[in-house]
Amino acid sequence: MDFNSENIKMTDGGVTAPLGFKASGMHCGLRKNKAKKDLAMIFAECDCSVAGVFTQNKVFAAPVGVTRENIKNGHARAVICNSGNANTCNSDGYDKAHATCKAVAEALGIEESDVIVASTGVIGVPLPIEPILAGIPVLAGQLDRSFEAAEDAATAIMTTDTKKKEFAVTYNCDGNVIRIGGMCKGSGMIEPNMATMLGFITTDVAITPNMLQKALSTVIADTFNMVSVDGDTSTNDMVTVLASGLASDKVIDSEDYAYEAFLDALRFICTKMCTAIAADGEGATKLLTADVRNFKDIPGAKKLAKSVINSSLVKTAMYGADANWGRILCALGYAGIDIDTDKIDVRFISKAGSILVCENGRGYPFDEDEAKKILSEHKITIDVDMKDGNESARAWGCDLSYEYVRINGDYRS
Amino acid sequence: MDFNSENIKMTDGGVTAPLGFKASGMHCGLRKNKAKKDLAMIFAECDCSVAGVFTQNKVFAAPVGVTRENIKNGHARAVICNSGNANTCNSDGYDKAHATCKAVAEALGIEESDVIVASTGVIGVPLPIEPILAGIPVLAGQLDRSFEAAEDAATAIMTTDTKKKEFAVTYNCDGNVIRIGGMCKGSGMIEPNMATMLGFITTDVAITPNMLQKALSTVIADTFNMVSVDGDTSTNDMVTVLASGLASDKVIDSEDYAYEAFLDALRFICTKMCTAIAADGEGATKLLTADVRNFKDIPGAKKLAKSVINSSLVKTAMYGADANWGRILCALGYAGIDIDTDKIDVRFISKAGSILVCENGRGYPFDEDEAKKILSEHKITIDVDMKDGNESARAWGCDLSYEYVRINGDYRS
Repeated sequence: MDFNSENIKMTDGGVTAPLGFKASGMHCGLRKNKAKKDLAMIFAECDCSVAGVFTQNKVFAAPVGVTRENIKNGHARAVICNSGNANTCNSDGYDKAHATCKAVAEALGIEESDVIVASTGVIGVPLPIEPILAGIPVLAGQLDRSFEAAEDAATAIMTTDTKKKEFAVTYNCDGNVIRIGGMCKGSGMIEPNMATMLGFITTDVAITPNMLQKALSTVIADTFNMVSVDGDTSTNDMVTVLASGLASDKVIDSEDYAYEAFLDALRFICTKMCTAIAADGEGATKLLTADVRNFKDIPGAKKLAKSVINSSLVKTAMYGADANWGRILCALGYAGIDIDTDKIDVRFISKAGSILVCENGRGYPFDEDEAKKILSEHKITIDVDMKDGNESARAWGCDLSYEYVRINGDYRS
Repeated sequence: MDFNSENIKMTDGGVTAPLGFKASGMHCGLRKNKAKKDLAMIFAECDCSVAGVFTQNKVFAAPVGVTRENIKNGHARAVICNSGNANTCNSDGYDKAHATCKAVAEALGIEESDVIVASTGVIGVPLPIEPILAGIPVLAGQLDRSFEAAEDAATAIMTTDTKKKEFAVTYNCDGNVIRIGGMCKGSGMIEPNMATMLGFITTDVAITPNMLQKALSTVIADTFNMVSVDGDTSTNDMVTVLASGLASDKVIDSEDYAYEAFLDALRFICTKMCTAIAADGEGATKLLTADVRNFKDIPGAKKLAKSVINSSLVKTAMYGADANWGRILCALGYAGIDIDTDKIDVRFISKAGSILVCENGRGYPFDEDEAKKILSEHKITIDVDMKDGNESARAWGCDLSYEYVRINGDYRS
């Protein structure tokens, strides 16, 4: 959680902020609503190192399988992503994912195996390939370095997201300014091991594919894999990073200070991306952060934090601004971790204040009005002090509202 | 799932149906609403064999700890249970649970260690002991064998349950009629390993404590532990059985035909109890049954069935009568079980019909209107054929509705 944040600055823009990247986004026709873009492209002007992390679901989308294969050699140059259809559980899914890569390769003059392909949307409905094939040359023609082009791409990957999610940061290393940009989409089905969550990151750092993968895997474990909206893990998740290397001559090829600086900045932007996903969870009215502190070990602390953030009863209590801390103890109790329940303190924290509600596993007398005020804010931290070690973990999630039920009760209509 | 059902008959009544049992229920004052009973008692006229199964939550209620201790010797004679307060996470919880047992023992002229004590309600609020101590002699005076007395007890243990849940069955063995009665409460926080689920079973079978515990543990694994409302596992769950032995001279002390007959009848009544709990889950409009058939092994089939029944996305789809079978594949995929996704068939079944929606892991063309009609029924079976073995498992749950959110958004008010 600790950033060398003095060295990291947020800037405007998204995936086109780093040197060497262009993007575009359009409505190709997968969605009925013509105002909603549904196809996004990112293109790197030079060969890039690439890394990726994918869903752990045994049922995974065809584009996940194809992209996993395509990035194996450590190099890639383009991203193509559609919303509106997940291309999952279809008998022709792989054929269509390959056809998409082929069309991108032809339009951009690159190898088919240098294309990252991704889809998000409904599962089990055959992907209409014609609008995609017709759209790809149009997208290629519209590729641009502008913030607007990045924004077009960021909006094209949205499903039930209510806000586009794009970020950019810069940091300094060896006198060079290095940039990282990212766009992502989330909403429902967001849980450990990646969920319907797509993240596309670009950077102009110079780094080997191996070290890039190491950095991404390290950061994902503490960021995207600690986000939960509803406990469902999607079939389509992926987060990829393309690194153009244009910002510096020296290539990161070991865990040196330059790697650490990149890791910090990557963690910073991934944290921004995943809190944006949690805050914009389907039907969410509140961003919840569960901090489990002072536990024996990190894996245990992570499981405890996730158990709290994923409890429907905790989520509904937070929606109702109800300081029902017993549900937090309960969620800690069934996390499958050996805990000393007689040591646990629980606090609710928001910008309206901080309130202790449970001490040593027992109720601590508190002012209900003050608790209500604190829990009525939009960003709430559930602070759990295990008083049983020195390790900590943080998980992000959101409340459970009527709106979640409405959105998911008839998603396909 | 197979009962020797010709030998098992449902009858009227509940915990007083078997020979040797009386019950009572009253409003003692834990709840503000005077029309809502909040304290229940069951009394056995003779010494009983006893067995119990308890929550696996590391945070568990004081009455769970006390009852676990009290039944260790295999014998008990009474149940006392309050609703309105869970007596969990309170510093004086054990003292009050012991004081409750002492008062019951005095009122009934039995040993304190022969009392099963249980609580259900909000966690972390000190239990008001005075209304309970004042109510116990009143309850003792009202003990009766009538159906009405059993019903008073069954309604007194309800929390957000909308219906009382009591059942009784008889079966024949060696020319004797043997009776089993049961009452339970469920609603929110119902999940594997017991949830806020209380079940009190009585029977007049003659059985040793060891064999009774064996029968209960066997049956619970396929019934109460396969019910899920919201994935939260409560701090207060318990299911106990008291066996008076008054129906026969021969005592079951091995796994003979008499044990098997009892096991069948116990499984039958527990299935009735837990489907009633699932159908009456907080805010539920539909009872969902997930049947995972033809898998390699039972533990795997159980995990798969629970993963489907517990998915918020599946639950909301069922609420909306939306045949979104991709979410079912997705939930199977993240269950943590090694599965062959290319073999899976999925059908939706209700009294309106049966429809195949997924074959060999791919979408099967189906009539949306017919699917809607089938899914608009109140009892829906999600039938999953893994085509990869001969073992099966069944789990029960309910849909996720607006009402769940409303109930849990401000439970403590």
